[in-house]
Amino acid sequence: MSERIVIVGFGPVAARLVDELLPAVHSGDVRLTVVGAEAEAAYNRVLVADLGVGRTTADALALADAAELAAQGVDVRLGVRVKRMDRARQQVLLADGAAVHYDRLVLATGSRPVIPNLTGINPDPSTPVLPAGVTALRDLRDAGVLREAVDGGKRVVVLGGGVLGLETALAAAEEGATVTVVHNGPHPLGRSIDRGGGAVLAAGLRRCGVRVAGNARSTGIEHNGPDGGFSALLLDDGSAIDGDLLVISCGVRPRTELAEGCGLPTGAGILVDHRLRAHHEPHIFAIGDCAEVRCPDPACAECRSAKGPSGLVGPGWRQAEWLGGYLTLLAEGAAAQAELLPALPPEQPGVVVLKARGMNMAVAGDNSADPWDEEALTAGAATGRPRLQVSQWADPEHGRYVKMTTRGGVLEGLVSVGMPRTAAELVGLFERGAELPADRSLLLRLDGPDQLPGAGPVDPAGTVCRCAGVSGSAITAAVSAGCATVADVSKATRAGTGCGGCHEDIKGLIEGHFSPAFP
Amino acid sequence: MSERIVIVGFGPVAARLVDELLPAVHSGDVRLTVVGAEAEAAYNRVLVADLGVGRTTADALALADAAELAAQGVDVRLGVRVKRMDRARQQVLLADGAAVHYDRLVLATGSRPVIPNLTGINPDPSTPVLPAGVTALRDLRDAGVLREAVDGGKRVVVLGGGVLGLETALAAAEEGATVTVVHNGPHPLGRSIDRGGGAVLAAGLRRCGVRVAGNARSTGIEHNGPDGGFSALLLDDGSAIDGDLLVISCGVRPRTELAEGCGLPTGAGILVDHRLRAHHEPHIFAIGDCAEVRCPDPACAECRSAKGPSGLVGPGWRQAEWLGGYLTLLAEGAAAQAELLPALPPEQPGVVVLKARGMNMAVAGDNSADPWDEEALTAGAATGRPRLQVSQWADPEHGRYVKMTTRGGVLEGLVSVGMPRTAAELVGLFERGAELPADRSLLLRLDGPDQLPGAGPVDPAGTVCRCAGVSGSAITAAVSAGCATVADVSKATRAGTGCGGCHEDIKGLIEGHFSPAFP
Repeated sequence: MSERIVIVGFGPVAARLVDELLPAVHSGDVRLTVVGAEAEAAYNRVLVADLGVGRTTADALALADAAELAAQGVDVRLGVRVKRMDRARQQVLLADGAAVHYDRLVLATGSRPVIPNLTGINPDPSTPVLPAGVTALRDLRDAGVLREAVDGGKRVVVLGGGVLGLETALAAAEEGATVTVVHNGPHPLGRSIDRGGGAVLAAGLRRCGVRVAGNARSTGIEHNGPDGGFSALLLDDGSAIDGDLLVISCGVRPRTELAEGCGLPTGAGILVDHRLRAHHEPHIFAIGDCAEVRCPDPACAECRSAKGPSGLVGPGWRQAEWLGGYLTLLAEGAAAQAELLPALPPEQPGVVVLKARGMNMAVAGDNSADPWDEEALTAGAATGRPRLQVSQWADPEHGRYVKMTTRGGVLEGLVSVGMPRTAAELVGLFERGAELPADRSLLLRLDGPDQLPGAGPVDPAGTVCRCAGVSGSAITAAVSAGCATVADVSKATRAGTGCGGCHEDIKGLIEGHFSPAFP
Repeated sequence: MSERIVIVGFGPVAARLVDELLPAVHSGDVRLTVVGAEAEAAYNRVLVADLGVGRTTADALALADAAELAAQGVDVRLGVRVKRMDRARQQVLLADGAAVHYDRLVLATGSRPVIPNLTGINPDPSTPVLPAGVTALRDLRDAGVLREAVDGGKRVVVLGGGVLGLETALAAAEEGATVTVVHNGPHPLGRSIDRGGGAVLAAGLRRCGVRVAGNARSTGIEHNGPDGGFSALLLDDGSAIDGDLLVISCGVRPRTELAEGCGLPTGAGILVDHRLRAHHEPHIFAIGDCAEVRCPDPACAECRSAKGPSGLVGPGWRQAEWLGGYLTLLAEGAAAQAELLPALPPEQPGVVVLKARGMNMAVAGDNSADPWDEEALTAGAATGRPRLQVSQWADPEHGRYVKMTTRGGVLEGLVSVGMPRTAAELVGLFERGAELPADRSLLLRLDGPDQLPGAGPVDPAGTVCRCAGVSGSAITAAVSAGCATVADVSKATRAGTGCGGCHEDIKGLIEGHFSPAFP
């Protein structure tokens, strides 16, 4: 007897789970239904901004093919909202009136953009209807709106100084738009970066042609544009920033209302345990942006330091992969074996990387301590742990800045601006938890004038694609087996299917393979 | 008819002037009298602390030999105070009742230590009588007091965080004393250094075994020592720092009272014009620590930015050399030729260097701006001058810190702690006004782990002895001509006769000459 699994949501994480469950669908162990509110099957949402500036195509963004999945026996329902869930009857009730029974239900409802409370914008959080000329750049339609503005050389105002806002701003400026980033706080990226790095980053953005308005509190929008569209962002000091398109990039919030509607406990997201199961509900799971791993055990040390959904695609993919294996075992009747599966390890703290023409930045961990901030450096060192140490190179004139926060020689935080090779090395050291050289200034040499130009060699043992978790050696193996383009490699290994930040590194590995060796 | 020249004071600067005038004494053009208050002829006061810790001998400090000078025809009067000067009669009246007529009078009265106003210390500024166990470390007797404390392994308290206080503290600690430096402000060296450099410097002092008590305001001394001597320095927070000897190192003040007593104008020091002549008094000159070059012309741009006496021996020696030539011409009756002598160029801003086992520091110029201090960096850039730029390397864990403040790529300020080769290179670039490499981090490589150990090669074109103004090539020439020790080189070139900071470099040049060349 086969098990009915229903997935609510059809974004990148749901698509990955569908992939993982396909063998069980083929074998007849699973009958799978996936319900998506958008008209399209899963696509790479991270690259919507790239699509908006004309750097990629909607086809290249696709992560699933609804017709092919249907042909393989998956029940795909697109453009249909879920009205509510009936846990007593184990049914999902759809807006079109249909009811779908489930044995296991997986919520992959993702997140929605945070829309700030501005005069002139309807802030209803569940169904935000944005006025003309305002977009949150979340779906394919939004990409079209940005595309129009960029192609027309219009003035784009980006509200929000997070990494997605900055990437959008840099890309739009490179493609010819006049772009202003508006953020509160003294520098972009908020508390992810420190004061020095933030200042050098802001100067770098300006050098790349992006205007940066810091310490700006927006209060409303003015719509004197054509058809009553957006014409200016109003600030609380009485000034205004004129523009033709407002891109809101103020972060995302997990979509939890379906879970709340059926009484599941939520925090920042839908609360799940280390097996991704909703609290006290063996039939319902949640993965990706909508899920918050925090188990019901108040003594769990891991959950005490957990930080809620990351908003990154990589952790969601790892959850989908794990849950696919787990649900397959359950469907095969191997419940005991499923319970023996080791739980997912906690996610490493994220590395934020920003790459654009003339701009390179990497930030990770805690960078709040300054080199002479004794209070911050010695906090937490009472229990025999070594104290924090900070090394710092600041050369704002040349747009360069590095800060390394270490404990016992191992990075706990890093900031690198304008030094791509140093950044790559530090990120590798951070992810491996490896010890830095005693003379930290050696790391600066990687970006010295005597180094060869280019992106620098890729460490084969290191992770190249952080979203899909693919190493350089796995990519090299795929290239040896015949992959000759990034698209080939992505198809064979999934490397490069996420944020796209590793495409240059994959290209480098391909070129290295096909170029003649030299001594 | 020969000219009577009287020099009041017989310190290092006066000794140099005597040397310069000897040929005119021999030829009979000049009859020269030199009056010293101390019983000894001129000796190297800068090395009194070295004598106090047993690193040098009184003989090695001597800069003049009274008997030999007398044999050469100089009227040397030691242990005699000048009571007053009678400008109308052109006479110097001595405490022993003698009156000496002058045609030209040169004041080289030097400076006296600043004695802070502390309970338990008699603060009469003209004749400070310090209690037992308290010394200002100024003359040979003071050196003996320190020597006793160091040899006895006693506790020495150094009051004052200037470079002389730090050198004394480091030397005394190295030789076995227990030393505490007490200073106000957040770090030693006050405004000469910046916050970061000061913090790394203070940590370095501690690593060298010197205790550092910062932000300390002393209010008085306790004398419960043997014979009622010093036993503790009392602070305004009610605490006390116990010790057996208090070394006061709170700077010096020009001795101007003789000049004031005969109505000569004084500022910080005795005011002289660019020919070192007292204002409106053609017969009187002043040189060295007691003199302040500031001409009567209120429109003189050079004097508007002048900074008063430097307290360093080098500028005084250059004044003595210049004045010797000038007075010789006058005595020879070549007044017109004397007036054609180009005036002394203004002194370069000083470079403060601190060297000890395990400690290296160089500071010069203005280091007050921080890398992101827009206000300080753009001040003064309105008139078309480029703005200031700051590059900074901070690695306090390893005791290393460099800050380079540049305008148009040329140093206006430098701080280097714990990086001896970088410091030497930066000091050279600073003194030559040379442009830094665009990638400032290249300078850090000089102290990288891949560099050979040792003091680093000496740039032959650069100044090696800053006090006497002797270049590396002049020293090499002396070594080629037969000088095989530092003492030989000092005798031949005067290099190394001042602060002694260049002795290692001179040794390096000698060793380089005598060691076999290798490819």
